[in-house]
Amino acid sequence: MPIVNRYVDISTVDKEAKKDYIDRHSPFIHCATSAKGGEKFQVTVRMGKDYAHPDDPDHFIKSIQLYNATTLLGEANFTSGMMGGAGAKGNAEVTFNIVPATGKLTLTAMSYCTKHGLWECDPVTINVA
Amino acid sequence: MPIVNRYVDISTVDKEAKKDYIDRHSPFIHCATSAKGGEKFQVTVRMGKDYAHPDDPDHFIKSIQLYNATTLLGEANFTSGMMGGAGAKGNAEVTFNIVPATGKLTLTAMSYCTKHGLWECDPVTINVA
Amino acid sequence: MPIVNRYVDISTVDKEAKKDYIDRHSPFIHCATSAKGGEKFQVTVRMGKDYAHPDDPDHFIKSIQLYNATTLLGEANFTSGMMGGAGAKGNAEVTFNIVPATGKLTLTAMSYCTKHGLWECDPVTINVA
Amino acid sequence: MPIVNRYVDISTVDKEAKKDYIDRHSPFIHCATSAKGGEKFQVTVRMGKDYAHPDDPDHFIKSIQLYNATTLLGEANFTSGMMGGAGAKGNAEVTFNIVPATGKLTLTAMSYCTKHGLWECDPVTINVA
Repeated sequence: MPIVNRYVDISTVDKEAKKDYIDRHSPFIHCATSAKGGEKFQVTVRMGKDYAHPDDPDHFIKSIQLYNATTLLGEANFTSGMMGGAGAKGNAEVTFNIVPATGKLTLTAMSYCTKHGLWECDPVTINVA
Repeated sequence: MPIVNRYVDISTVDKEAKKDYIDRHSPFIHCATSAKGGEKFQVTVRMGKDYAHPDDPDHFIKSIQLYNATTLLGEANFTSGMMGGAGAKGNAEVTFNIVPATGKLTLTAMSYCTKHGLWECDPVTINVA
Repeated sequence: MPIVNRYVDISTVDKEAKKDYIDRHSPFIHCATSAKGGEKFQVTVRMGKDYAHPDDPDHFIKSIQLYNATTLLGEANFTSGMMGGAGAKGNAEVTFNIVPATGKLTLTAMSYCTKHGLWECDPVTINVA
Repeated sequence: MPIVNRYVDISTVDKEAKKDYIDRHSPFIHCATSAKGGEKFQVTVRMGKDYAHPDDPDHFIKSIQLYNATTLLGEANFTSGMMGGAGAKGNAEVTFNIVPATGKLTLTAMSYCTKHGLWECDPVTINVA
């Protein structure tokens, strides 16, 4: 099955290689803590916080999806070379704009690495006034 | 989080509406039981076995992904209207061709419904001689 | 600009290398010559007729899109390795099913090679009775 | 064939409805006028300059692709509802980050409207020092 890996707080992880592995494969959501209904709300999803991922033709971050609860909002597909190409490392990133209705957004991101599969971050809840 | 729903054998489900719900949202893999290394191997993924899914602009099957273990092989994106459009029901379907290396394929499909999210089928194992 | 290359009848092309180049990058539509409204109609799009395309990590057929006139019907995304991987050649292929309304389908396919860009085939007209 | 529409300077267009039609379907590239090799370079692609596009389930901006000459860099897929949903209008937008090599970028964007097909903007040339 396509196991979806979940982010684990790397401060709880001992081995440096594992911290790196988890961090560079995890999407992180960056956005304001509240939104206004009917107004543009910017959401950036960026891979990794403290570590960067290779950008080789056979090993790169291929996509980031942004969900509101279980509903797909947007998806970005990347190509190898965008982060500097073979030998380089980088933090794939995309910024979406959404115009939410009042209520609540429960944002989650899911990313795909061509070698290490699907990764999902913890949901971020945003109140939309 | 984008909950990935898993197929449940509907013969174990009592309510007709739930049988329908699970079946029409689940991708099913159709392929030969064995493959030859270096030769073309056809894999069809079809949504539903006994039930069909609406094809409305705001409610349709948007994509099917085919994985080998955790590695994405191919993805099909559909548009509403392909299955007859508003008011119609159908079984979205795609056929991929892959040329596997000898060993084993562990095929899984994941689909996305614009209203009911991600669904994953049980893996199908294929020996590649 | 993303120049969209158009298929050229390779029997009118002299140089063998150019025949190969055009053929292996062109999507070809394979389907019945007529369809019935409201019934499933199978459309296969296959890359190349007489030549095959590399399947290297940095050089492969990444996608095939199927259009009815200017409307996208479906899209398949492939990954390198599906056609045998580095050193191998193949003819990427996908089969879609559509349920057309009565009238006419004007099918066109557009494909993308990671090194040689977008390619479009001549439209195929199907009467839907 | 999937006609790819090209942007036309709307100051040369007389009819208001046609200005609106062209503008709201055209992707515009927003980025710095020069880049540094090996460093992150931000590229925003936004639909429309003076007009906004509907966000209805059967009529919305579905995707934006960013090309460097004929090479796809990144692609964003949107879903209807992201810009406020049925009855609302908006300017779909995505921001990519790329790390170019020294030389030149020839950026073009191509977008797809579910009713009015593919649209391509004029290329933007960026020197990468």
